[in-house]
Amino acid sequence: MVLSSFVEVHPDSHFPIQNLPYGVFKPEPSSEPRPGVAIGEYVLDLSVVASAGLFDGPVLKNSDCFNQLNLNKFVGLGRPAWKEARVTLQKLLSATEPTLRDNSSLRQKALVPMVKVQMLLPVVIGDYTDFFASMHHAKNCGLIFRGPENPINPNWFHIPIAYHGRASSIVISGTDIIRPRGQGHPAGTSPPYFGPSRKLDFEMEMAAVVGPGNELGKPVDVNEAADHIFGLVLMNDWSARDIQAWEYVPLGPFLGKSFGTTISPWIVTLDALEPFASDAPKKNPPPLPYLAEKISKNYDISLQVSVKPAGEEDTCIVTRSNFKHLYWTITQQLAHHTINGCNLRPGDLLGTGTISGPEPESYGCLLELTWNGQKPLSLGGSTRKFLEDGDEVIFTGCCKGEGYLVGFGTCSGKILPTPS
Amino acid sequence: MVLSSFVEVHPDSHFPIQNLPYGVFKPEPSSEPRPGVAIGEYVLDLSVVASAGLFDGPVLKNSDCFNQLNLNKFVGLGRPAWKEARVTLQKLLSATEPTLRDNSSLRQKALVPMVKVQMLLPVVIGDYTDFFASMHHAKNCGLIFRGPENPINPNWFHIPIAYHGRASSIVISGTDIIRPRGQGHPAGTSPPYFGPSRKLDFEMEMAAVVGPGNELGKPVDVNEAADHIFGLVLMNDWSARDIQAWEYVPLGPFLGKSFGTTISPWIVTLDALEPFASDAPKKNPPPLPYLAEKISKNYDISLQVSVKPAGEEDTCIVTRSNFKHLYWTITQQLAHHTINGCNLRPGDLLGTGTISGPEPESYGCLLELTWNGQKPLSLGGSTRKFLEDGDEVIFTGCCKGEGYLVGFGTCSGKILPTPS
Repeated sequence: MVLSSFVEVHPDSHFPIQNLPYGVFKPEPSSEPRPGVAIGEYVLDLSVVASAGLFDGPVLKNSDCFNQLNLNKFVGLGRPAWKEARVTLQKLLSATEPTLRDNSSLRQKALVPMVKVQMLLPVVIGDYTDFFASMHHAKNCGLIFRGPENPINPNWFHIPIAYHGRASSIVISGTDIIRPRGQGHPAGTSPPYFGPSRKLDFEMEMAAVVGPGNELGKPVDVNEAADHIFGLVLMNDWSARDIQAWEYVPLGPFLGKSFGTTISPWIVTLDALEPFASDAPKKNPPPLPYLAEKISKNYDISLQVSVKPAGEEDTCIVTRSNFKHLYWTITQQLAHHTINGCNLRPGDLLGTGTISGPEPESYGCLLELTWNGQKPLSLGGSTRKFLEDGDEVIFTGCCKGEGYLVGFGTCSGKILPTPS
Repeated sequence: MVLSSFVEVHPDSHFPIQNLPYGVFKPEPSSEPRPGVAIGEYVLDLSVVASAGLFDGPVLKNSDCFNQLNLNKFVGLGRPAWKEARVTLQKLLSATEPTLRDNSSLRQKALVPMVKVQMLLPVVIGDYTDFFASMHHAKNCGLIFRGPENPINPNWFHIPIAYHGRASSIVISGTDIIRPRGQGHPAGTSPPYFGPSRKLDFEMEMAAVVGPGNELGKPVDVNEAADHIFGLVLMNDWSARDIQAWEYVPLGPFLGKSFGTTISPWIVTLDALEPFASDAPKKNPPPLPYLAEKISKNYDISLQVSVKPAGEEDTCIVTRSNFKHLYWTITQQLAHHTINGCNLRPGDLLGTGTISGPEPESYGCLLELTWNGQKPLSLGGSTRKFLEDGDEVIFTGCCKGEGYLVGFGTCSGKILPTPS
């Protein structure tokens, strides 16, 4: 029998009792932020559940991790706490459990309609790293910028390539993105131009939220890396391709990325994703021993990007991809990140890089979809080489279970013009 | 007449009353961290000064900025607070002022011998950015890795090139550095090797500590950028050259840098450095308008690196350089960083990149000094291509005033072997 909740959950909902993703919200504009879990069209206020003494397991009974402004303390407690919270919450919300179901005053306090709440960044992000883990994306970028001879750099098949991103400009879904200004370069020996970016793009990514960290100097074994990952969110790594192309040699992307990065508010736990695990692609050449994991898995998460131009009613789907296409898994990414002794901290974010599939209609950014502007994309009534002011970009992602979905909700942002 | 303090200050001290750099310290191992100012061989405990009601100016009178575990709140208050604190402290410590001088019980509480305290990171660093602002360094790296044709990339003369660094692994001077493991690549089509880095290096840098930040989407004007910089520290951006060389294409340095970055504990304010301002190098081509500052200045800060091999008594000076050699000023760096709307926050760190001078004996890292290991450096009894286990690397820097120094103390770290 399928587990079900006394809270009504539509079959198309991303948030059935099988999911229970974590976020941080304000029930009223003047309230303090607090952790919550999504269930159907409600948010379960975990500070209320904790104050009512309903986290009664050995790990969480005396913890104040749900009386915090963010989830850092909870995610830092590690898998025993996550497991215990999931068991407690699945029981509390199940159709057959009277504790919350039959206590109308507690229920009213604990379950807040999702439409009423304001979602915030779920964690304080100390450091944000962005990988480059999709082979199709790496190959397409190479073809576009370097041509058909060796589009993928030789290091790529040995290293989960990554760069440090900017943590301060990570924003929650729904935050407007201001078109950045910067330098671009036409070609040859011309001087650079300066102004609003002419090649503004989205990048469809997901990101892992780090749970317990590691001490400086102590790498995490790849086979234990999953214990350091709390869950996943959707991420839009907005990119100004003209700024990026001119600045990135030799130290990598900088201002082409750091004007804004959007994440979805709900962290879907690896426990909720486990039924949707899929084998990671076979690696050739085989990875070095520190990256050779006993079980190498991705998750079957369908991803979709829509664009809604200013003033239009309808959104237009521009790509469909899947998390399962990643070449380097999130556990390989994390193990690689720490192999030099680099310390991770709870709440750190590890982006996957753009997740492109093998087919042209599954590419994860406009750079690839329009082949750097050479093949404009049709958006119903108009076309796009890159994003225009007023465009709203909406990501969504979900796993399809038997009779239910485990989803991520949406990750959206609208482009505002550069202020003069 | 030269300003002097009732606290005895040796003429060779880096910390006369003209300096008054800020740090965070613990007077006893069990104490809470608190802000302090260095004066001679003492640390003035600012929490004691504040509790005694001696910050009586309009900005600081009712502030709790010195009853904090770090300096973030104080540096975020901006120049009016910094000016007021400097006036208050220079008066309080002056030879002619009785308030502290003649109050032995307050003096005993407020002035702690420097040898007794433990220094900590002075600020919580939200984001750390590292620039590449020395032309001599950029040129030498280009000559070593790409050869004599166009050693400096065309973008370099238009953009203060930078990358996002890793904030979590920034440590305070005196912290041991564990030799990182990672992948390197011999040459050609050979597979990569894996193990302890064979090319461990220091990079002599300085870093600006950001004061008030800016809102996302609101760039800082280059002529107002100095109001966003509290002061400078010494910084050693330890680098594993073999890891870096293999990983950095196309997204820049990652694990070759993120195993550790050391900063000196005392932040020397721009106010203390002002008497040592020097004209920045003329720029050709002229920078774009957003980088064209009315007054373009560096500071005349003599920098020196020594190495002390394990078991040896003596240190050996390996290079002498100067902050005044920077091509892109720290205000240009900051203005560029925000031109795309990227938000800075109080306590963020902006590294200058390796500061190399024009002469071979002023190069700022072993990569340049030994020309990538081709010309080993003599260290008294031994030679070095790169750093060996047990080597202690000590940076120091100071400005020479008339009869006094304004210095940074030291920034040091010792290499420990990779654990097996």
